[in-house]
Amino acid sequence: MKIRNFNDITKFLRSQSKRMHVIVAGLADESTKIAVSDAISQGIAVATFVGADENLLQQSCFDGLHEYINVIPMPDADEDAIALAAVRKINDGTGDFLMKGLIHTDNILRAVLNKEEGLLEKGKILTHVAITQLRNYPKLLFFSDSAVIPEPNTMQRMAQVGYLTEACRAFGIRRPRLALIHFTEKVNSKFPCTLDYEDLKSQAKHGRWGNIIIDGPLDTRCAVDKEALATKGIITPLEGNSDALLFPNLEAANTFYKTVSYFADAKIAGMIYGAKCPVVVTSRGDDRVSKYRSLIAAATLQLYAGKTAECGK
Amino acid sequence: MKIRNFNDITKFLRSQSKRMHVIVAGLADESTKIAVSDAISQGIAVATFVGADENLLQQSCFDGLHEYINVIPMPDADEDAIALAAVRKINDGTGDFLMKGLIHTDNILRAVLNKEEGLLEKGKILTHVAITQLRNYPKLLFFSDSAVIPEPNTMQRMAQVGYLTEACRAFGIRRPRLALIHFTEKVNSKFPCTLDYEDLKSQAKHGRWGNIIIDGPLDTRCAVDKEALATKGIITPLEGNSDALLFPNLEAANTFYKTVSYFADAKIAGMIYGAKCPVVVTSRGDDRVSKYRSLIAAATLQLYAGKTAECGK
Repeated sequence: MKIRNFNDITKFLRSQSKRMHVIVAGLADESTKIAVSDAISQGIAVATFVGADENLLQQSCFDGLHEYINVIPMPDADEDAIALAAVRKINDGTGDFLMKGLIHTDNILRAVLNKEEGLLEKGKILTHVAITQLRNYPKLLFFSDSAVIPEPNTMQRMAQVGYLTEACRAFGIRRPRLALIHFTEKVNSKFPCTLDYEDLKSQAKHGRWGNIIIDGPLDTRCAVDKEALATKGIITPLEGNSDALLFPNLEAANTFYKTVSYFADAKIAGMIYGAKCPVVVTSRGDDRVSKYRSLIAAATLQLYAGKTAECGK
Repeated sequence: MKIRNFNDITKFLRSQSKRMHVIVAGLADESTKIAVSDAISQGIAVATFVGADENLLQQSCFDGLHEYINVIPMPDADEDAIALAAVRKINDGTGDFLMKGLIHTDNILRAVLNKEEGLLEKGKILTHVAITQLRNYPKLLFFSDSAVIPEPNTMQRMAQVGYLTEACRAFGIRRPRLALIHFTEKVNSKFPCTLDYEDLKSQAKHGRWGNIIIDGPLDTRCAVDKEALATKGIITPLEGNSDALLFPNLEAANTFYKTVSYFADAKIAGMIYGAKCPVVVTSRGDDRVSKYRSLIAAATLQLYAGKTAECGK
């Protein structure tokens, strides 16, 4: 099934035999509670709230859903302890992925990065993957990194390409089309990212990421607009039909995120990626719908990771 | 008169006693010809085509407009000579501003930067200023720099603030509100632009740019969205009502430009700024309407510069 928008994600998850298990770390704010209860009501999630209010189940949004919810109050624990307890619920096989409640991102990341009990395997890199649905684009568009790595180095860009590719595959895209973004289409040693892009293309050619189409440098518009390519006389195998955009730095990716969210009324999901499971780290400004979107996107990615792991057995 | 959209610019220029004189350098492509003929028909421009086809006036778009057009064919001249001849038409007082025809941007910039006969005064910095009209924003939004300076240094950022301020004033904004863009609202020595921002704010406080409101670092959304500020609990004198955005680097600004142009259906004008006059350097992909927008935006800026100069006499 190819997933073209956020409604398709819900449908896709409903079609699965298994509910995904989300571990919420920390007290849950109103919009997180409702996002989780929506996902449970849709039949696609169960939840464990670690470090939650012990009266959580008395909230009306959870009426009739108690069998799908586990509450672990930790009234005397600090945020680091709560985060680590949540992480343990992934490592012991209880949960499928993490979602941040009312604790700081720093605390949850510290637990994810914990050397003994964390979720980051050696050699893996944490980055941010976002997924956006736009009015005038016929499919979801994946992009990195608008939140974690300010100026990716060559290794980090390689990891980002791998993660974007994996994310596309989880959404049913067999041959992901990945654009390497820069402000012109020229490779130029003055702009080291363009040299990295040459390297990434060469590795892709040698099969590093399997069946993908990758090209760049291209500007944001040429990555998604066939007509812009034609007018500029640029030929690229992506044909203005990219599935994923790799931005050269966090400033550019964050500008893209904020610009589509406000000026193009985009729907967006986002998560920290690269650990054993996605970590939904929504921000203060996110409402219940955007938290729901990030939750179901993370569930889809982790479902794919689980299936891939099973195939590998 | 406060100008809130591109239609207002045409109205504003029509209300002036003087037509602005555009010097077009090089052969004119179809969309440039029509943009110029539109501006002449509107009663707001006269034009000199330097290095143009000698049969230019036989084009039907110029019917009835011959009295407003001067054609200087230079059949044996190369692009550098044509660009320099166009620049001379500014220096000798014939023209008010420059517009690129079918010659390369490099050639026209070389002429602008020419030490003896060019247009860049000592100590001035060339940068790019763009102006965009967005569906869900109540006024024009100015921004720099999506095309010229990849990683501005402190001096260049100072110049950019000055130019953005000047541009806003030319459009009737008495107290320009200028946002300094970064992906968070924190000043952090790991991100040198945020230190520059502190410096810019301090200079603004001491009156360097007159009556302006400047704040940052702020992300793109917090610069323009009052609700995002409220949700995040950020207090800024800009109040999500910025007139101008200074981006930290070209990658971010170019991403903004391309993203609003495609995903938010924005109307955009752009020009190179900082020389004796604006230089309209439209790109291959621009149609007649976007060239017209850049032309009238440049005319407005130069009209203001002229009036300011007169006041100073």
